[in-house]
Amino acid sequence: MNERQPARRPGGRSARVGADVHQAVTDLISERGYGNFTVGEVAARAGVADSSIYRRWGSLESLLTDVALTRLNAKSPMPDTGSLDGDLRTYAAQVAREITGPDGLAVLRLAVALSNSGQRGLQAGDDLRAERTRQLQSMLDRASERGEDAPDALGVLDHILAPMYIRVLFGMGPLTPEYVDGLVDRLL
Amino acid sequence: MNERQPARRPGGRSARVGADVHQAVTDLISERGYGNFTVGEVAARAGVADSSIYRRWGSLESLLTDVALTRLNAKSPMPDTGSLDGDLRTYAAQVAREITGPDGLAVLRLAVALSNSGQRGLQAGDDLRAERTRQLQSMLDRASERGEDAPDALGVLDHILAPMYIRVLFGMGPLTPEYVDGLVDRLL
Repeated sequence: MNERQPARRPGGRSARVGADVHQAVTDLISERGYGNFTVGEVAARAGVADSSIYRRWGSLESLLTDVALTRLNAKSPMPDTGSLDGDLRTYAAQVAREITGPDGLAVLRLAVALSNSGQRGLQAGDDLRAERTRQLQSMLDRASERGEDAPDALGVLDHILAPMYIRVLFGMGPLTPEYVDGLVDRLL
Repeated sequence: MNERQPARRPGGRSARVGADVHQAVTDLISERGYGNFTVGEVAARAGVADSSIYRRWGSLESLLTDVALTRLNAKSPMPDTGSLDGDLRTYAAQVAREITGPDGLAVLRLAVALSNSGQRGLQAGDDLRAERTRQLQSMLDRASERGEDAPDALGVLDHILAPMYIRVLFGMGPLTPEYVDGLVDRLL
């Protein structure tokens, strides 16, 4: 998405528009859920023109992905504890906490919904995963540089994230700390 | 759901109604997708009264689950190859083939949608999973009875099904035979 965004001056009009639009999206998500509002409704709520949103984000899907990434990065920053074991346990526990909250489930449903909303949705879903995978890979690369035997990012997706995602998406009860630690143990 | 269903005489009126209603649901799913039609629309398409559907299935969610289970049981019966290794590989390959077809993705989305549609949806999702888990457990029990060291059904869910489900739900490309076999290797 970055190539679509003009340089922003912190505190300038562009930053204010960005903050207002993000807030409008967050409000509409909590009122109606992902996928149940239009660019026009976001624009009206944020007090900007539709064209400002299309110029900056290109599509509703890209805007939703930007909001989801901003949320994830604020709530689940990648840990750096000094060991692979500590990093993975902290990360898994953060993700478990995030996705079992009502907003976190909405982010997960967004990722599913994006893959079902045509080419722009698929692209936005790819962007969302690519950014999070890049962050995860940095964490794993730090472990490799310390000489630790790190799994690859897809292994973390398949055996730590996917089981937690599916249990939450299927409404299969809480993710206990023992369960989450067990997933990390098995992968390491 | 079984307790709601009257005994059916094969070839009788009850069986015909069942077949017509299933066909109507299958048609509406392929035209509109899961969740985008009502009991009244199913009834009209099948040529039966709304009350016949409510009497037999109780709710739209239960009807959808019945249709999904019937489909799954027809397309992905539990294998019985004589070894745990053979059973799990055959099962994993069947599931991969099923969920990467356009209809299979719809079943997966149904499971996600059910957990998001209130108490009846959660119950229907539980019924859907309970029946498939019961079948999977029989397969694993047969392996234990042969003296093989079988994983539990939740292990199969977490480490074979969940990775495949998430990759399909997130639109992350094909499930190659090598990938699917790798999941089985890792669990065994």
